[in-house]
Amino acid sequence: MVDPTVMRQIQAELLDYKGTGMSIMEMSHRSALFEAVVNDAKDNLRQLMDIPEHYEILFLQGGASLQFSMIPMNLMFKHQRAAYLNSGVWSQKAIDEAKRHGEVIIVGDNANMMHKSLPLCDVLPDSLDYAYYVTNNTIYGTQFKQIPMEHAVLVADMSSDILSKPIDVSKHALIFAGAQKNLGIAGVTIVIIRKDLIREDVGVDTMLRYATHQKANSLYNTPASFSLYVLKKVTDWLLETGLETITKRNEFKAGLLYETIDKSTLFSNDIKAEDRSLMNVVFTTNDAKLDETFINFAKSYDCVNIKGYRSVGGMRASLYNAMPVEGVKKLIEAMNAFEAEVKA
Amino acid sequence: MVDPTVMRQIQAELLDYKGTGMSIMEMSHRSALFEAVVNDAKDNLRQLMDIPEHYEILFLQGGASLQFSMIPMNLMFKHQRAAYLNSGVWSQKAIDEAKRHGEVIIVGDNANMMHKSLPLCDVLPDSLDYAYYVTNNTIYGTQFKQIPMEHAVLVADMSSDILSKPIDVSKHALIFAGAQKNLGIAGVTIVIIRKDLIREDVGVDTMLRYATHQKANSLYNTPASFSLYVLKKVTDWLLETGLETITKRNEFKAGLLYETIDKSTLFSNDIKAEDRSLMNVVFTTNDAKLDETFINFAKSYDCVNIKGYRSVGGMRASLYNAMPVEGVKKLIEAMNAFEAEVKA
Repeated sequence: MVDPTVMRQIQAELLDYKGTGMSIMEMSHRSALFEAVVNDAKDNLRQLMDIPEHYEILFLQGGASLQFSMIPMNLMFKHQRAAYLNSGVWSQKAIDEAKRHGEVIIVGDNANMMHKSLPLCDVLPDSLDYAYYVTNNTIYGTQFKQIPMEHAVLVADMSSDILSKPIDVSKHALIFAGAQKNLGIAGVTIVIIRKDLIREDVGVDTMLRYATHQKANSLYNTPASFSLYVLKKVTDWLLETGLETITKRNEFKAGLLYETIDKSTLFSNDIKAEDRSLMNVVFTTNDAKLDETFINFAKSYDCVNIKGYRSVGGMRASLYNAMPVEGVKKLIEAMNAFEAEVKA
Repeated sequence: MVDPTVMRQIQAELLDYKGTGMSIMEMSHRSALFEAVVNDAKDNLRQLMDIPEHYEILFLQGGASLQFSMIPMNLMFKHQRAAYLNSGVWSQKAIDEAKRHGEVIIVGDNANMMHKSLPLCDVLPDSLDYAYYVTNNTIYGTQFKQIPMEHAVLVADMSSDILSKPIDVSKHALIFAGAQKNLGIAGVTIVIIRKDLIREDVGVDTMLRYATHQKANSLYNTPASFSLYVLKKVTDWLLETGLETITKRNEFKAGLLYETIDKSTLFSNDIKAEDRSLMNVVFTTNDAKLDETFINFAKSYDCVNIKGYRSVGGMRASLYNAMPVEGVKKLIEAMNAFEAEVKA
């Protein structure tokens, strides 16, 4: 979702960007106006996330899925060995790709507990190129409230909670996220990487080296330029709104929903309290058929996309930045009405 | 560029796609409505290009530049050897990546003639995984009017002239093109590939295998969904307009411009007549300073982006599908006025 004010601005300037008579979609990525979009988006992110100068901000294509490969390709440089904390489907996918490039040591896993809580991290072994974790697990509805491990080269997949709250960039060496959840629309992958880790001589293809994109200010080849433009607009909006306000609103939205679930005698969430995600709230009636009925029932309250992931079932409400408090209240209204109906 | 009618449609439905109250930008790529966009875009391309059923149509990210790697990664399977016809900067970039994956045999090159004409193709050696060429060279303004080589696995980079005229897909094994020149906006790379060439066991990472994207109907991970939507709209428009009309219009536009250049005593184009591109017309006054003056002069005729590529200099007019005849006429008007002024 994108905030409606931002969306209206995008619509208003769609046919004529800054009096040029051209759409931003049609502009050459080599034009000064478009390069300004890229630089503004970088500046906005640097300010919003307090990114130190010795970190580079890159805008890439291919989504988090391509980062699962690019990270080991570029960082498994000395030891060909990395530690992964396995907290769900997305870390597992990253592990599968990393294994093609070197040794992967799993330093925590809770698959045997159905990912109902987050894994604790073992003591990290020596001689690692990096240590890797996922901050928020969209499918299981879990989220690390503290950074779960320390390492000189700590890598975090923040695809689903970037800029939903403040985080300490300086504790990390590489942070990545697709823009589509909290920062706009699909087509741009944000990579924030400590400059000393960017090497030309990693022995992989041009497009797969971070160094290529650093040298070209993320314009080595034509990017998904409209998606970059939306990223700029959304980060403008985040700056105006303030990350503190966003954080409080996200806590408030999730708080309302968890409270409703915990009070309910129909709906439940069995994620360990301190591991509950503020971004993705999973809940269920513990009856697959009744869950299905509720998902359809909720549509009349304008609540869509609340079906849980295939392997988990139940419901999942995603409360990303642009989801308004009213949206959550509507869902709660639907839940209360449904519960009353079922109990009647 | 995108046709203004299409652009207005996009603007009109930007905040509410098909009465859903949601923008297409905000829709899940797993939703039925979005999958319909993907399938419609595929159907449109199949119809427009007369693509046989034994070819798959894939929508990928990363642009042509990532295809320079994915092609050898996926196709250099048996002999680790491929033939490349070198007709300019883009084929050279593809050659550089292919060399990382196997043996590259250059079967024609005209760099020593400054790419003022297209290279002829040598007799192809045996035991090749594929043979590769670029149909249109944006920088030098050359374009193959006939397919320059025959091979059972013929690969063509059609980034800059796809759907500007009819081509025989069945003579090729793999065709690829970014959408941004003739088919919409950046963010989608179209790959048309014969199904028997798609293999799971090519030993490369998940995102870099064509098989991954085939299995997932190009929705393995979140695509640049808005760019895919624009591709669907532009191919709708191409179907309505008809490829025959588009082809004639492209021939007419280029014809007008080459005629003006050939009549001029100020401007010239020294590309071999039969190799001249209908998409990118290069021309110069043979005086770098005067070229610069003309580029600025032309702005008052609403002609922008006509500066030639760094290494070539001069001017370059790109006459992609959405460029109207009026745009070319304006440029000709500017050229005539400038010539009169210089001669006065």
